[in-house]
Amino acid sequence: MTFAPLKNDTFLRACLGQATEHTPVWLMRQAGRYLPEYCATRARAGSFMGLATNVDYATEVTLQPLERYPLDASILFSDILTVPDAMGLGLSFQQGEGPKFEKVVRDEAAVAQLAVPDMDKLRYVFDAVTSIRKALNGRVPLIGFSGSPWTLACYMVEGGGSQDYRHVKTLMYARPDLMHRVLAINADAVAQYLNLQIDAGAQAVMVFDSWGGVLADGAFQDFSLAYTRRVLGQLKRTGVDGAVVPRIVFTKGGGLWLPEMTGLDCDVLGLDWTMNLGAARRIVIDAAQKASEPNAGSAASTPTEGQDLPQSRPPKALQGNIDPNVLFAPPEAIRTEVRRVLDSFGRPHTYTAVPGSTHIFNLGHGISQFTPPEHVTHLVDEVHTHSRRLRAA
Amino acid sequence: MTFAPLKNDTFLRACLGQATEHTPVWLMRQAGRYLPEYCATRARAGSFMGLATNVDYATEVTLQPLERYPLDASILFSDILTVPDAMGLGLSFQQGEGPKFEKVVRDEAAVAQLAVPDMDKLRYVFDAVTSIRKALNGRVPLIGFSGSPWTLACYMVEGGGSQDYRHVKTLMYARPDLMHRVLAINADAVAQYLNLQIDAGAQAVMVFDSWGGVLADGAFQDFSLAYTRRVLGQLKRTGVDGAVVPRIVFTKGGGLWLPEMTGLDCDVLGLDWTMNLGAARRIVIDAAQKASEPNAGSAASTPTEGQDLPQSRPPKALQGNIDPNVLFAPPEAIRTEVRRVLDSFGRPHTYTAVPGSTHIFNLGHGISQFTPPEHVTHLVDEVHTHSRRLRAA
Repeated sequence: MTFAPLKNDTFLRACLGQATEHTPVWLMRQAGRYLPEYCATRARAGSFMGLATNVDYATEVTLQPLERYPLDASILFSDILTVPDAMGLGLSFQQGEGPKFEKVVRDEAAVAQLAVPDMDKLRYVFDAVTSIRKALNGRVPLIGFSGSPWTLACYMVEGGGSQDYRHVKTLMYARPDLMHRVLAINADAVAQYLNLQIDAGAQAVMVFDSWGGVLADGAFQDFSLAYTRRVLGQLKRTGVDGAVVPRIVFTKGGGLWLPEMTGLDCDVLGLDWTMNLGAARRIVIDAAQKASEPNAGSAASTPTEGQDLPQSRPPKALQGNIDPNVLFAPPEAIRTEVRRVLDSFGRPHTYTAVPGSTHIFNLGHGISQFTPPEHVTHLVDEVHTHSRRLRAA
Repeated sequence: MTFAPLKNDTFLRACLGQATEHTPVWLMRQAGRYLPEYCATRARAGSFMGLATNVDYATEVTLQPLERYPLDASILFSDILTVPDAMGLGLSFQQGEGPKFEKVVRDEAAVAQLAVPDMDKLRYVFDAVTSIRKALNGRVPLIGFSGSPWTLACYMVEGGGSQDYRHVKTLMYARPDLMHRVLAINADAVAQYLNLQIDAGAQAVMVFDSWGGVLADGAFQDFSLAYTRRVLGQLKRTGVDGAVVPRIVFTKGGGLWLPEMTGLDCDVLGLDWTMNLGAARRIVIDAAQKASEPNAGSAASTPTEGQDLPQSRPPKALQGNIDPNVLFAPPEAIRTEVRRVLDSFGRPHTYTAVPGSTHIFNLGHGISQFTPPEHVTHLVDEVHTHSRRLRAA
């Protein structure tokens, strides 16, 4: 498989801690219901899964936001629950409601039936990756993704979305042995899934730990972080064209655990809007400095993580973190908030004496379906304009 | 007004940083739907508001959990939305749904109509406080409470609960001037409301900033923390019997902002389960030590908070923070998790060389309506047993 050479590699360079002329920007869920052209395609597809499982439709909607906005990356259009669906749990979407699984995984018998699914059932995803990569024709890089093992488990045990995560936490506290089994299977499935996306043409991969933040301190480390680490340990380092494939990990509500997440073998950490980017930048820089000290990996710094972090890497890049609700404000207020987020990260390191860390601008969560599309234009433009200004200052 | 002398002051002493024989424990929403006797009273009352506005019913349900469990504090049974209801927004509860307001506050005209309500409309709350205090007959202290200005504003603007806080954040980002007006009114109303609860017999007061954690860094400080501070600045320091009335502030999802919250003029900070109690303890101790240094209050330590904190206070006490979902696990697992939370805080300071901070055991959020009542027995017993063991060790 050969693909057209990449014209805009700003995003990939920022992922790897390299200098860029502006701060790259893309938006979680950038192909979605806030775009009328997306709704039109979805109507033609008949249903959400009809959209997600059809290569042509998936390609079409992935490219839609790029036609409107000069975004620096695209992300595969797919659902977070394709993997448990392939496990045979029976995914469906009711109109106006969230995802539902026909089978739930709440007892020993249900756990015993779980296995890493035949990846051929997910061929529609890998075909979509290749199709999108071709259609992009080198415009911007394509990000592949998966839900984290814990986040998938939340849906598999709850049977859909949840307000209180009562069932999955009951299983976790009452039968940690079963929970660990589910998570180990999920981790191995997610790793295979992401590797096949890489083989199909994905140029970066992202793990969405959307529900890691609902866990208690202690439980997060044992039931979410440990299995994200298990995924990362199995991932390919280079793509079909031989280029490094950056890995992004995003834990919504995970700001308190950022010091521990710096030990993950990934390049980028995503943050939601509760975290101050300047404080986060100091944390990733501190961690990189500690890891490069002679005793790095010893118990003193990050005991359980030390073994994962190859030494003398640049500090992790940070991705985020504006509140998507900012997009409901008028254009001038949007631009003010964009500048505030860029300024909180600070000037890029290659232009100052301060060491390390780069920034990829994003929302702190998926874009709302109610967002006025023209407001996104102002956000993207201000990221590019103000981040160039920061570099010139 | 005179009340019976207090027999169990463990909770109040812990609030004020004093030594106690065991770690006191109470549970957010301890009088509630998980108790069949509560459901029976509610059925007699006809509706939730029928229950909350009737002094006898409110007294009855407040005392119910004390009959089952040796809890160290009681909390007024009431709703978080009584204040905006008294403002004329028209509160109602639909069966099986959350609270709804008839009027929403989303534009300049609606904001112009808002004012601190006539506190006489809330007389049923103050009467309930006095009635409960009498009925308690000195068994344990009575906590009064209110929603925080920001949390009340969320409901007032959204018109009820919300998943994304779209409307309140739109107002905040688009018209910060209007938002500040709402919050100022709310803060003054909450302060009057809590002072009248103190006058009626409340022995501690708690501000529930249940939705502070949905705000972005920066917005939290300006739109939530600043108005909690405004409330605290207006509160009475002593109750009807001349005793100090401790103030508790709980921001769900506010762990990242704990260093800033140490500057609040309150005695106790509540934490949800995402925060490590040992780390939180170090933060409150550090803050107290900085505040007692000669240059305390200068720009170096906590610039915007320094003026609030009277010097040479003990470090703030911490309240929390077990995941309420632990209560769905079998008794032995519950006890293990209780010990884990107590151990994460560590030995009480009065028994070690380490300075400061006391612990009040609680959930990190309200108890679930699905909780098996007999499981709570194990939680409360293990808090008392293990915390005595920690002191004896």
